[in-house]
This record gives sequence, C-alpha cells and structure tokens, in this order.
Amino acid sequence: ADSAAMDAARARQAQLTKPAGALGDLEELGVRLAGVFGTDRPHPRGVAVIVAAGDHGVAQPDTEGGGVSAYPPEVTPAMVANFLADTPAGPGGAAVNAIARTVGARVYVMDAGVNADLPPSPALVRAAVRRGTRDLRCQAAMTREEATTLILAGAALARRAIEEGADLIVPGEMGIGNTTPAAAMTARLLGRDPALVTGRGTGVDDVTLGRKVEAVRRALARNGSDPGDPLGVLADLGGFEIAAMLGVMLQAAASRRAVILDGFVEGSAALVGVALAPALRGFLFPAGECAEVGHAPQLAHLGLRPMFRLGLRLGEGTGGVLAAPLLLAAAATLREMRTFAEAGVPGGG
Amino acid sequence: ADSAAMDAARARQAQLTKPAGALGDLEELGVRLAGVFGTDRPHPRGVAVIVAAGDHGVAQPDTEGGGVSAYPPEVTPAMVANFLADTPAGPGGAAVNAIARTVGARVYVMDAGVNADLPPSPALVRAAVRRGTRDLRCQAAMTREEATTLILAGAALARRAIEEGADLIVPGEMGIGNTTPAAAMTARLLGRDPALVTGRGTGVDDVTLGRKVEAVRRALARNGSDPGDPLGVLADLGGFEIAAMLGVMLQAAASRRAVILDGFVEGSAALVGVALAPALRGFLFPAGECAEVGHAPQLAHLGLRPMFRLGLRLGEGTGGVLAAPLLLAAAATLREMRTFAEAGVPGGG
Repeated sequence: ADSAAMDAARARQAQLTKPAGALGDLEELGVRLAGVFGTDRPHPRGVAVIVAAGDHGVAQPDTEGGGVSAYPPEVTPAMVANFLADTPAGPGGAAVNAIARTVGARVYVMDAGVNADLPPSPALVRAAVRRGTRDLRCQAAMTREEATTLILAGAALARRAIEEGADLIVPGEMGIGNTTPAAAMTARLLGRDPALVTGRGTGVDDVTLGRKVEAVRRALARNGSDPGDPLGVLADLGGFEIAAMLGVMLQAAASRRAVILDGFVEGSAALVGVALAPALRGFLFPAGECAEVGHAPQLAHLGLRPMFRLGLRLGEGTGGVLAAPLLLAAAATLREMRTFAEAGVPGGG
Repeated sequence: ADSAAMDAARARQAQLTKPAGALGDLEELGVRLAGVFGTDRPHPRGVAVIVAAGDHGVAQPDTEGGGVSAYPPEVTPAMVANFLADTPAGPGGAAVNAIARTVGARVYVMDAGVNADLPPSPALVRAAVRRGTRDLRCQAAMTREEATTLILAGAALARRAIEEGADLIVPGEMGIGNTTPAAAMTARLLGRDPALVTGRGTGVDDVTLGRKVEAVRRALARNGSDPGDPLGVLADLGGFEIAAMLGVMLQAAASRRAVILDGFVEGSAALVGVALAPALRGFLFPAGECAEVGHAPQLAHLGLRPMFRLGLRLGEGTGGVLAAPLLLAAAATLREMRTFAEAGVPGGG
C-alpha cells in the first residue's frame, strides 16, 4: 500500500467538515483505501465476488469414521447450480446472488474442483484439475502443482473481473467440508491447538465437532508440511477453492485493488498469502467476525479489525459483499466531503 | 408490525438454501422487515434521510457558565449550508451527502429552528417556529404547541419522502449542543442518573463534560415534566430537530415504512415515540451502537440490537444511511433466495 497517499489521506481527514474522529472506524478504512488506490481521494466503483467451489476428500461418505459436515457432499454441485440458476429475480438463487444484486456486484463462479458433472453454463469458469482433494487425514490434499494451478486460475479470474470493472474484490467459497482444511491450515500456520481453531462450520453437533478436531489432529500428525513453507501447507492441508481464493487475493493486490475478506475459509487463504507476501496485508479488509471459532485468531494474526459482527457463517462471500457499501462510503466521505475552509464552517483544525 | 407476515417469513427462512441460522442477524432483520411491509417477501427500494437542524438555548455563548459543546453554535447554520451546497460530486458537501450518494439515498434538509438566516435554497424545507430553543437549565425548552408543530412538520416531510419513493427512512439531525437535551430526555424517561447517560458529543473535554452533566441536573431539578407524559418531556427538555425526528418516525410507521435509527439524539426521539405508541418499536432498526455513553441504555430499553459498532459519533443520519444496504440485503435474501426444494439441493427441512 502507498504510505504517502495514506499520510495525505490522514491530513485530509483532519480538515473535513466533521469533528475529528467522528466517523469512527470509517476514517481508518478510508485511509487504508487511499493506500490501496494510491490517492487521498480513492474512488472504488465496481464490486465483484468470485465464488470458487471445490470438494474435499475428508467429506466423502466412503471415508472412515463418519463425516465432518452437517451436509452431504452432493450439496457442493447443487449449490454451484443454484449460483448459476435462472430465477425470477435474476441469475442465481443463493444468498450471495441476492445480496450481490442489492449492491450491483458481479458474481463469478468457478469450478475449482467439484466432485460432479456440472451443468453446462457459459457463466461457469471451469478450472478443476481433480474432482475434489484427497483425504487430508491420510495424505496431502493436493500436490504442489495442483495447488499452483488453482492459484493461477484464481489470479486469471481476478484479472478478468478487474478488466470488467472490479475495484473491490470479494473471494468467496463453496465446498462441503472446507472448514476442516481451513482449520488444519490455521492450526499449522498459527501454531494453535486444533481444538482452539476448529468450529461448527455449517452447524455440526458435538459428536461431529469431535470428529472434525480429530481429523485435524490426524492431518497435522502426518507432518506433511512446515509452517515456514506456506505453499506447502496449502497443498498439504488445504483445498482447491482455497488455492483459487489465494490467487484472487494476490492478483487483486498486484493490481492495486481492495480485497474484502469474508470468513474463516477465506482467512485461511489470507494467512498463506501474507506469509508469502507480507505486503498483501495492506490490501485486505475483513468484513465481519464470523461465528467460526478460529476466525478471531486469524484476524488477530493479521492485525486487522472487522467491520461488523452479524454472526454470519454461510460463506459464499456473503459477508464480503455486505461490507462493500461500507468501503464505498468510507472512500466517498474522504473523497467528496468539503473541508472546513471550503465550506466556511467554523471550528476546523 | 404484521405478526402473520413475520411468522410466514420465519417459515420461509427455514426453507431457503442455506444452513439454518447461517445468515446470523440478517435473518431476524428480514423477519422484522416482513413485519413492517406486511409480506414474507419484503421489497424495500428507496432510501431517504431527513436531516432536521435546530439550535439550542443551552449552547448559546451568552449563557452563563460556559458552553456544552466543542463547537460554537454558528456551526449549525454553516452545516445546513454545507448540506445544500453545490459541489463537484453533487449536492451537499457533508458526510451524510457523500454517504447518501453511494447508496442512492435522497437527502431532505429541514430548518426545524436554526438561529440564523439561512441561504435561499429550494431544497431547504422551512419549518422553524423559533430561532432555537430556550435554555433548558432555566425553563422549558419549547412550549407544547411548538413541539407539536415540529412533530407535524416532520411527519409532513416524511409523507413527502414516502410519496417520492422512500421505503427505508433515516431521521437525522444537526444541532450544536443537542446531545445535552437528548441526555436530559434520556435521564428523565429512563430514570437514570445524568452522569450515566451524558457523553462527550462531538468530543468535549472533561471540564465541558462536567458542565454538560450539571446542565442536565439543573434541567431535571426544575421538575418541569413527568416521565408519564412523554410529549411534556420532549417540550420541557428536548429540541426542535428532536421533535421533527419524532414526527418522521411516527409517520413512517403509520405508513408502514422502516425507520433506521442512527444515534443517541435519534434515540431520545425514539424513547418518546415508543412511550406514546408502543407499536412504533416494530418499525425501528438501530444502525450502530454509537460512541455516546447513553446510547446503549436507550437500545436496551427499546430491546433492539444494533447492526454494527463502528464508533460513529457524527450524527446527520450518517450511521442510518450506512446501515441501509444491510436491510436491503436482509430483505433480498428472504425475497429472492430459492428454497431447498426449488433448487434441488439436498438437506432442507
């Protein structure tokens, strides 16, 4: 991020027609957007959400010991079809589609590795190299090459979204079982005990939560990756949609666009991203603190404050799209408000 | 609010393609919007913010004992001019204007009782009956007739906003010194000690805060009103812009529109409103918990949860406009998402 533009934005904030600090967290968000866009008058316009979908070996019903999700893996392809469906309200019948329509956000949908034949749709970006990851309890979820391929696919789709006008980019995900790999990555990268970062995902009961924690413990016990090798951790413990979201984030930052971080699975991709490229942090804007127990430790590690706490735990990028208007407003106040001098209002600096 | 529509909305929420409860607080917001609009598929469209401005006898520099605000009262008319100014970005150079542009909200500006000649502007609604209230430390701030006139003026402007398309209505305010009357009203209506509900407003120092608390104590010690007579409390301790906001709220509810509550001064009008007409509560949607110390007790009394906590303390309706996209999104998910059955997704009901 551009520290000169951030300094200029701070100086400008102090002259705008409001008591110092009266816009609360919006003021720091404006300064951070100045850093992203390299100007003290940032003007983000388009919003895009890129929903990457993938399946997970750990969630397949033929695996030993019972599942890790409240839902069967067939939900992943069914929800991809839902993202793409024709509905009376417009394209897509999922929460992310409905919310995106309210803010004029474009929705991009990527098959990052779904374990099914997906319906033919010109709107579906096909990037799968495998129908779901391997079972991370027993072996590496992906090869390093597979993970890299999906990172590049995510980056390519982010470039397209940017060419089509996106300034605020929300990586989103769909993948039954994916809070288990996200918890494994978070446990390894932050050095936390699995029980402290493994949560209920879509809403599992105590027995299934115990199985999730045990799955994470077994995955870590393989010693298949080292926290000092973040790409290795991603391949060993992650997922195809997580790799794709990492690519989206890295490309967005390289193109000087803001990334709105939705929830816990996105956070696991962000942990890899800042480990690879610490400057990525300046481009990340956490939306809300989600209900997943491992999210707060991720945000603490990133040193970033979320904008709200609405108790969301849906994924799909929904929280990120909900937060976009707050960033547009933060930029607008910094860009469009008059100064005390311009407005002839007494009381300025 | 329409309890049959709310029940239908709850039943519909349970069938939508998401884990039960995964949209967090957005789900209850959707149910409450169903109650306001009388349908399980609420479709609010237009957003309006009605900014009422008034001055306060307690803030005039010729009053004894020093001021109660960090800013001189001349800021009130200067900010009204700022709300109406031509700027390169469009009409209005204040925070509320900039934020309103990002969500397509209309801004209405009312002179509810500003102590100045205001610039001629066709966009200014002139409703003042007096140039500022009387000093509430020494006498009733308004007569009952003056307060009623401003309530009716607020209601009339809300009717106009509704005719012009508003479904979500944000009452907002500008008035140097107005957290002092808001604190006095809150202390009387909730039976709290002034020190517990009197805050720093635009950012006063400890000495001025002490004067504010003392001003509230003196106002209450006059025993000019009874908490069982909420209109009497408004006239005795309130302000012209607070009366106008009350009128906006009552008319919005009568017209079955949602009211987004910004901060502490709005909250003082809402306390009068629910005391007069308890059903108003069903139409109120608190935006954020603002930085003012008395806001949380108001929200607790109303039994309503705010949507975010961004540390805002600006007023003007800014927080309310920021929250509008969250309500539009809550309604959109309830209205536009497909059910498990419609989408053929396993796992419903």
